[in-house]
Amino acid sequence: MNTTSEYIIRLACANRPGIVAAVATALFEGGFNILDSQQFDDTVSDRFFVRIHFEQTRADADIDINALMAPVAARFDMQYSVHDCRKLRRVLLMVSKFDHCLADLLYRWRTGELAMEVVGIVSNHPRDTYAQLNLGDIPFHHLPVDKAAPNGKAEQEARVWDIVQSSGAELVVLARYMQILSDDLSAKLSGRCINIHHSFLPGFKGARPYHQAYERGVKLIGATAHYVTADLDEGPIIEQDVERISHRDTPEQLVRRGRDIERRVLASAVRYHLEGRVLLNGHKTVVFPE
Amino acid sequence: MNTTSEYIIRLACANRPGIVAAVATALFEGGFNILDSQQFDDTVSDRFFVRIHFEQTRADADIDINALMAPVAARFDMQYSVHDCRKLRRVLLMVSKFDHCLADLLYRWRTGELAMEVVGIVSNHPRDTYAQLNLGDIPFHHLPVDKAAPNGKAEQEARVWDIVQSSGAELVVLARYMQILSDDLSAKLSGRCINIHHSFLPGFKGARPYHQAYERGVKLIGATAHYVTADLDEGPIIEQDVERISHRDTPEQLVRRGRDIERRVLASAVRYHLEGRVLLNGHKTVVFPE
Amino acid sequence: MNTTSEYIIRLACANRPGIVAAVATALFEGGFNILDSQQFDDTVSDRFFVRIHFEQTRADADIDINALMAPVAARFDMQYSVHDCRKLRRVLLMVSKFDHCLADLLYRWRTGELAMEVVGIVSNHPRDTYAQLNLGDIPFHHLPVDKAAPNGKAEQEARVWDIVQSSGAELVVLARYMQILSDDLSAKLSGRCINIHHSFLPGFKGARPYHQAYERGVKLIGATAHYVTADLDEGPIIEQDVERISHRDTPEQLVRRGRDIERRVLASAVRYHLEGRVLLNGHKTVVFPE
Amino acid sequence: MNTTSEYIIRLACANRPGIVAAVATALFEGGFNILDSQQFDDTVSDRFFVRIHFEQTRADADIDINALMAPVAARFDMQYSVHDCRKLRRVLLMVSKFDHCLADLLYRWRTGELAMEVVGIVSNHPRDTYAQLNLGDIPFHHLPVDKAAPNGKAEQEARVWDIVQSSGAELVVLARYMQILSDDLSAKLSGRCINIHHSFLPGFKGARPYHQAYERGVKLIGATAHYVTADLDEGPIIEQDVERISHRDTPEQLVRRGRDIERRVLASAVRYHLEGRVLLNGHKTVVFPE
Repeated sequence: MNTTSEYIIRLACANRPGIVAAVATALFEGGFNILDSQQFDDTVSDRFFVRIHFEQTRADADIDINALMAPVAARFDMQYSVHDCRKLRRVLLMVSKFDHCLADLLYRWRTGELAMEVVGIVSNHPRDTYAQLNLGDIPFHHLPVDKAAPNGKAEQEARVWDIVQSSGAELVVLARYMQILSDDLSAKLSGRCINIHHSFLPGFKGARPYHQAYERGVKLIGATAHYVTADLDEGPIIEQDVERISHRDTPEQLVRRGRDIERRVLASAVRYHLEGRVLLNGHKTVVFPE
Repeated sequence: MNTTSEYIIRLACANRPGIVAAVATALFEGGFNILDSQQFDDTVSDRFFVRIHFEQTRADADIDINALMAPVAARFDMQYSVHDCRKLRRVLLMVSKFDHCLADLLYRWRTGELAMEVVGIVSNHPRDTYAQLNLGDIPFHHLPVDKAAPNGKAEQEARVWDIVQSSGAELVVLARYMQILSDDLSAKLSGRCINIHHSFLPGFKGARPYHQAYERGVKLIGATAHYVTADLDEGPIIEQDVERISHRDTPEQLVRRGRDIERRVLASAVRYHLEGRVLLNGHKTVVFPE
Repeated sequence: MNTTSEYIIRLACANRPGIVAAVATALFEGGFNILDSQQFDDTVSDRFFVRIHFEQTRADADIDINALMAPVAARFDMQYSVHDCRKLRRVLLMVSKFDHCLADLLYRWRTGELAMEVVGIVSNHPRDTYAQLNLGDIPFHHLPVDKAAPNGKAEQEARVWDIVQSSGAELVVLARYMQILSDDLSAKLSGRCINIHHSFLPGFKGARPYHQAYERGVKLIGATAHYVTADLDEGPIIEQDVERISHRDTPEQLVRRGRDIERRVLASAVRYHLEGRVLLNGHKTVVFPE
Repeated sequence: MNTTSEYIIRLACANRPGIVAAVATALFEGGFNILDSQQFDDTVSDRFFVRIHFEQTRADADIDINALMAPVAARFDMQYSVHDCRKLRRVLLMVSKFDHCLADLLYRWRTGELAMEVVGIVSNHPRDTYAQLNLGDIPFHHLPVDKAAPNGKAEQEARVWDIVQSSGAELVVLARYMQILSDDLSAKLSGRCINIHHSFLPGFKGARPYHQAYERGVKLIGATAHYVTADLDEGPIIEQDVERISHRDTPEQLVRRGRDIERRVLASAVRYHLEGRVLLNGHKTVVFPE
């Protein structure tokens, strides 16, 4: 948790002259100092994206940033949001049998690398699946999908949604959660649900991507973190990475190698989201670098 | 050109005990010394692949390697081929408008990095397209495809095939040759025609892959060198590589970045082929490392 | 633990014709099947290195592999060792305050990725330093160095050596253990003690390498796993890797990024060692790939 | 050559609130539109760096940008420079026997990837060393160093300096120029002379770095592009990259692999410099990404 009064503002609007000058001037006049500012002018869509990290310089002041920004936003027809860096984002983790991403996210959270509050873990497997991990006192929800029941999936998702709402989760991370979310739940979590897919998308969509990669004989395998949308494996990509493999790698070895790629790609994507570095640009993302 | 008597033998057969012992013993008894030996046991297909680089140790001898190997090959029902390293492989280069791969292959050939004899360059564009390059006295064949003629493509390919045969080309390299080979010509060149595709296959098959990559918003782009088959962009992959991109990259910048990836991936694949490192394993490849 | 009778033999000798034939024939005649064989002919030192992974094919037999190999070894003046894959290697982990490498090794051990038996953890910090980790029932030894005592370091190392001997540890892993081993202990553990150094050696030897990297303004940082020798940071390198950084990275961010590199480099080096892939070649290593 | 009126301003000053607002407002009021703006606040040195790419929006106007910026620069005690993108920077290339970097830079220049005017090539070898390359009508200067003469090196450097001045070279690129510049010439070319060193600095300074790398047994080799300073191999680093090698690589193979790394690292560094992306920050660089 950050103890100084730091904020991150993210904004998007149609590009035209004067935006940077107007925003920077408003912040300066409100007594703020810009620590970092990044922008992207998408010349194809003509959209303009800005992320500004700034701090309050007048200790006594209690400036209403939204009041400060409102006239600028109105003038340029901006969408914007302000985040107070002292407030940890509330995150719900969802997982199935494979726990390497879960283990990694929890480790990074405990070392302070991921500035978040873990408000719960949801799994379709029971808690003792993760007996080797230290889950501490994080609320654990065992929510199996009853495939025999006619509405088994819908009922399970209703309970997931209840937990999202009751826990105040701002972000849901599918850390190798092997159930496909319905269109309805995907829509409700739009822009705030990150999935890790175990292939370098758009190659090898769908099930068993390492086996697909083995069959195709590719020389690199990868993983992709993306926002979940109703369109499976087609959501906006946040981060990807690959590793070199060889003809000697069996599908089982690809699965093992893939665990390393998956956990670091997902951790990066979650960190970028938590730090407000990811802005949606249609079905793509703008990711302002660290 | 190598002046010592060095050879490369490549063989494939069903796996069973004793293969390595039999081949190594035959070579030893024939007066040869093994410089490098690599093998791969594909436990899925149960095929066994070997590449041995060896040298003659008795200067006066003139051993018939095929006679030496015949009984071993018969015993294990092996397919095998022997290459005399003193003989440069004959290579035909095919190119269209973009000449970065051609320029790179010619440079590496002149520095001795690619041990080959360039027996010709075929292009569907005229020679002065490459005025900036030093083509030396390599035979240049301008073979445009007459799209208006009913058999334009077939006639052009017949001329290509004539050149392959008359030049004795053992390998054809499609160095950004932007015409799709017919099934017939693909079949004739099976296992000895390498293409560079400007995407990380199997993602973004077909035309304009960098524009597809831009639209999808991937975070890495790549290139793939593969043997040409009748099934477009589905041939056995020899080499792939990728580079990181960002939301700032326009399609034009992806094209520019891609040139670097394409040229190094194609050059590696050609070198691996020339050095006998690539063995076909169904629709995949075994690539023994340098 | 492997349930079939598989073995790994590693051998080194001066290069001369017939080695591969002799070894392969001995194994074949003993009723063994070669699963994988890799060799390296160091043309500079004229040393020849072989690693063969093989299995017993006669279920009833109980062949003495050493008896089988003895005449071959004598003939070629070979050094060799045979490892029975059913026997897990015994490993002692040593750690200081930073536990990211320890956490990662334990995770990989529990998932079966690292085939070893963890016989103990030695730390110069007390056990509750690692309260967040699940150490299970692995013996934990808190061995602080008493810097005030005249022989503090020697006494602590004597206790470490006692633990190595009493636990039967075949490998000692310095998983960010921040004490320098004495020449004496380094010599005793020669070839079986792996350290992770948090720089891309030979750059930035010694203390605080990330701060050194920051000061120098390099554009990539890395980590190096090497065997410990009396010559600090000069031991034979087993594995290295790097990541791209930028001018925006503070020393603290380099430390954070470095944790990812360190843990994957160390885990790879330990796996290579456990699988008998690493052979010493003077002050360098031969690492036969997976 | 860019036909629209685009400019790049780069500035550095001590950090304090209001800089971005002041610069952006000045540009807006002068009728300019910001296309891209990047900044870096070095919290260690407390220096603030900005690069702004902007365009003129009033076609009829002929604004004096320096007059526009002068009051802002005075107020914040800024150092700044403005570059008109329509003007190609004048570049002098220096080379010795190995021409892979020269060949690559010329190729990228001809394809338009490097927006520069090549005003000359200086070599200590005669022109026919490069007979395989198309040097076109670029002035070629054969300036061997007469080692027998007491002032041979000084005289040669005097001629180099004459060429720099008479050609109006703004940047000098040492494209594997294997002579060490004197302190005097290094000082004269401070901040505008880029060298490619064939190692991943700070490892393997000095001569024959690939042989040093081979001796040390590293698992990756690299190259470093840096500004030349009087302190050999210690200048501010602009770009670095590495590739994985193995125990199988001889020094000769490292040299071959290294050529690929060298040429792409140098080309990137030159492009970053030409595009005004590199700002000096003490003995380090800020490199604003593409």
